[in-house]
Amino acid sequence: MSILVVGSVAIDSVETPFGVGENVLGGSATYFSTSASFFTDVNLVGIVGDDFPQEHIDFLKSRNIDLRGLVRESGKTFQWKGKYGFDLNEAQTLDTQLNVFQTFRPRIPAEYADTEYLILANIDPELQLEVLAQVRNPRVIACDTMNFWISSKPEVLKKVISKVDFFIINEGEARQLSGEVNLVKAARAILGMGAKNLIIKRGEYGVLLFTKDSIFAAPAYPLEKVFDPTGAGDTFAGGFMGYLANTGNVSEDGIRQAIIFGSVMASFNVEDFSLDRLRTLQYSEIDERYRSFKAMTHFEALQPN
Amino acid sequence: MSILVVGSVAIDSVETPFGVGENVLGGSATYFSTSASFFTDVNLVGIVGDDFPQEHIDFLKSRNIDLRGLVRESGKTFQWKGKYGFDLNEAQTLDTQLNVFQTFRPRIPAEYADTEYLILANIDPELQLEVLAQVRNPRVIACDTMNFWISSKPEVLKKVISKVDFFIINEGEARQLSGEVNLVKAARAILGMGAKNLIIKRGEYGVLLFTKDSIFAAPAYPLEKVFDPTGAGDTFAGGFMGYLANTGNVSEDGIRQAIIFGSVMASFNVEDFSLDRLRTLQYSEIDERYRSFKAMTHFEALQPN
Repeated sequence: MSILVVGSVAIDSVETPFGVGENVLGGSATYFSTSASFFTDVNLVGIVGDDFPQEHIDFLKSRNIDLRGLVRESGKTFQWKGKYGFDLNEAQTLDTQLNVFQTFRPRIPAEYADTEYLILANIDPELQLEVLAQVRNPRVIACDTMNFWISSKPEVLKKVISKVDFFIINEGEARQLSGEVNLVKAARAILGMGAKNLIIKRGEYGVLLFTKDSIFAAPAYPLEKVFDPTGAGDTFAGGFMGYLANTGNVSEDGIRQAIIFGSVMASFNVEDFSLDRLRTLQYSEIDERYRSFKAMTHFEALQPN
Repeated sequence: MSILVVGSVAIDSVETPFGVGENVLGGSATYFSTSASFFTDVNLVGIVGDDFPQEHIDFLKSRNIDLRGLVRESGKTFQWKGKYGFDLNEAQTLDTQLNVFQTFRPRIPAEYADTEYLILANIDPELQLEVLAQVRNPRVIACDTMNFWISSKPEVLKKVISKVDFFIINEGEARQLSGEVNLVKAARAILGMGAKNLIIKRGEYGVLLFTKDSIFAAPAYPLEKVFDPTGAGDTFAGGFMGYLANTGNVSEDGIRQAIIFGSVMASFNVEDFSLDRLRTLQYSEIDERYRSFKAMTHFEALQPN
């Protein structure tokens, strides 16, 4: 089953202690789509300026990503400049130029309106609502956001949250949104806002899935070389939703497997700048790392009393 | 099989955002012994002053902890005063009064010299070496330390590390000791110092076990109420070594189970001040939480290709 993703396509400049990536391909929808494309067909809705390099279009097409929803407008593409210290868990934003993204109003092409899998990547929650109004009855909706929307449009955001199956945010955002320091309390509060499930991303510490009545804890893959964490969260979400759409199995077992596939994709993505690692990634490597995750987390159950 | 633990017995005063514990029972050997006592017999070697309350002696005895190695000297017991902010992962030390602990020289009673399981809790690495010289041939040696010894006596500490089966430290200490920011590189460097296995504690994010050729990642139990993280690391180590000594199974499977039991014990301990939660803890609760850990981390393996 194909996925529809709505989000940003950007040109990033990133500095980490290990090097610099100048004017590289970025954006939440880009990372998400590329990651998901290893599992299923992806339809991308977004906007770029007339400066957007053809090589990036060619790359996305080479991943079989349908770009009929990618609008090109005169002006410059969204640009983000950021920096990471040795603590790679948090980026410092040096500059954001929204450019054509400033006036972006997502138009969902008619042929996408029946999508079964929808990801609302990090954009203005008003626009996320507009997207929801343009699709008929998706089977699975996932949604991301950021601190900026939590503080500026909490009520609109809560409307979005009440409509989604998977709300995917990081630890700090979960605390900010709920006003709770304790993560279990924060999760309970956010589920109380109507999200069916909540996935909390914790960077190098992995992710937690909170459902109505269970918790699943997945570690991150301990890597010796982390070059650039940019897009790790979107790559995670792409692998997660891609796997769900591929299998159609949205039981708790299926969801947990999808979380591991998401973690696998994120673990590859941070091994190089931008999404360069995904350019050479083979499916056999994904499979192998899934098995490593299994080996890394397995322990024996107690015998029943 | 019984365990020998050498470490501190203290009187703590602790402040957290959730309350205050004044002059409560503390110390690494105390937490360790109490936790291990749920799984096996424990022999404690340490020192207290003549002010040490009889009720604490009575409590330790009620846990079947053998106190023939607990020296009582005239003077005051080791006192520690600390404070936690909402980030419960790190304590701020307000005051340390070593008192009788200052001149502590561990004497291992002859009847303990054949111990098979030995834990060197956080004390001066010179003293840890003295303990090692007084025991014959332990099957399993575990060792903890702290930032203070890493910076003041790194060479002596490395001698200790080269002799232990499980070196158990926290994330920051692993980075400090190895000089590596990346945790996988840090672990490799520390294994290179001769520790057979390394356990890295990450507070609310769980623990990582590094062996020569594998990694095991265990989450912490997500708790809604964390009152006082003091002693969580020692309680973890107590459950870990206690379970190993109980089963005698030091295969990787056994070690992984022991790590989960350690995590279970730590998760209970932080639910109340000092080690008060362990005063009422029942073995059936430990068993039940182990099963929760299993449920919380389980996901399906891929079918073989």
